[in-house]
Amino acid sequence: MKQETIDRIRKFVSDRDWDQFHSPSNMAKSIVIEAAELLECFQWSEEEYDLQHVKEELADVLVYCRNLLDKLELDEDEIVNMKMTQNEAKYPVEKAKGKSDKYDQL
Amino acid sequence: MKQETIDRIRKFVSDRDWDQFHSPSNMAKSIVIEAAELLECFQWSEEEYDLQHVKEELADVLVYCRNLLDKLELDEDEIVNMKMTQNEAKYPVEKAKGKSDKYDQL
Amino acid sequence: MKQETIDRIRKFVSDRDWDQFHSPSNMAKSIVIEAAELLECFQWSEEEYDLQHVKEELADVLVYCRNLLDKLELDEDEIVNMKMTQNEAKYPVEKAKGKSDKYDQL
Amino acid sequence: MKQETIDRIRKFVSDRDWDQFHSPSNMAKSIVIEAAELLECFQWSEEEYDLQHVKEELADVLVYCRNLLDKLELDEDEIVNMKMTQNEAKYPVEKAKGKSDKYDQL
Repeated sequence: MKQETIDRIRKFVSDRDWDQFHSPSNMAKSIVIEAAELLECFQWSEEEYDLQHVKEELADVLVYCRNLLDKLELDEDEIVNMKMTQNEAKYPVEKAKGKSDKYDQL
Repeated sequence: MKQETIDRIRKFVSDRDWDQFHSPSNMAKSIVIEAAELLECFQWSEEEYDLQHVKEELADVLVYCRNLLDKLELDEDEIVNMKMTQNEAKYPVEKAKGKSDKYDQL
Repeated sequence: MKQETIDRIRKFVSDRDWDQFHSPSNMAKSIVIEAAELLECFQWSEEEYDLQHVKEELADVLVYCRNLLDKLELDEDEIVNMKMTQNEAKYPVEKAKGKSDKYDQL
Repeated sequence: MKQETIDRIRKFVSDRDWDQFHSPSNMAKSIVIEAAELLECFQWSEEEYDLQHVKEELADVLVYCRNLLDKLELDEDEIVNMKMTQNEAKYPVEKAKGKSDKYDQL
């Protein structure tokens, strides 16, 4: 996300004095609530979906993720790279290639 | 997310030939599954949580969001800004300030 | 659910002195967490799934629903019938037959 | 759930010819979607919630659980008792009493 997009989200929150509601727990609830609305776009069909609706719900997930990153003062790239290092170790290419199995079943 | 982090995620997927599993529907399911694991960090307490665990689960959500953005060839900043424009209209500062009500109850 | 099954769940909770953790909010979080674990059985395939795993995760959802019913002193049949009356009105047979559309798009 | 409530749900589905949409996977998605709507009642506050709204959303979860039980021809009491046997073994009273820790951390 570009810095100006991040700044817009932060201004949106501070203008409304909403930081008081953005506890980590409330953000975690909000992320799963929006993620379920995203899933609702695919509730009855895997193939047909309203792309505009998908964009809006995915954006909602991303905004709440940004709010949680801000609240916990986390760096997005740092935590994603930390997790990718774990993922790369858990799913070695030679074992995981072409398979959707969970790491403990590879 | 920095371009090199995005590239690392893409390489992780392509090295494992996992693009075949990354239908938009499967990504939406994956985002909500990981979001619920994030929520699990706060299942029994709002205040006490394992920060390292939170980082890992939030990173998982962000990685799957990136996969879905890639699959649908969406630009993160574009969809977030589109949604923020909607949010700013739905939650006018003078009405929403200091309140956690949903827009249709303001 | 039979009364003896309900009693078994209640005894499980009271033997462990867990009622203190079973706030309505914590139960709602727990239901969505278990529901996401149920969904995980179908994460990569709609058709192939581990039936035993599905049974276990669905049971977890049902147990937490029972805990929430108990906590709020709700009668399962009463709330389900109340909702079915709403659903029957929202989805008239002649409009909804054979369609998966949401009621506001029928 | 009483037999007449179960019959009402089944008639609702068959009158609308909706069985075609009720794949196990779609039911799992539906359960998590409704569970997240239930959680939304507690999004910004643990203590204040709209009880009527909670009843409606919990009922939705229960109806979809019933649909999934029906689809897979599962007996609710059988799977819940099977899982309770597992839970009782995973959470021995002497270890778990008064603690909200996960079984692998007891």
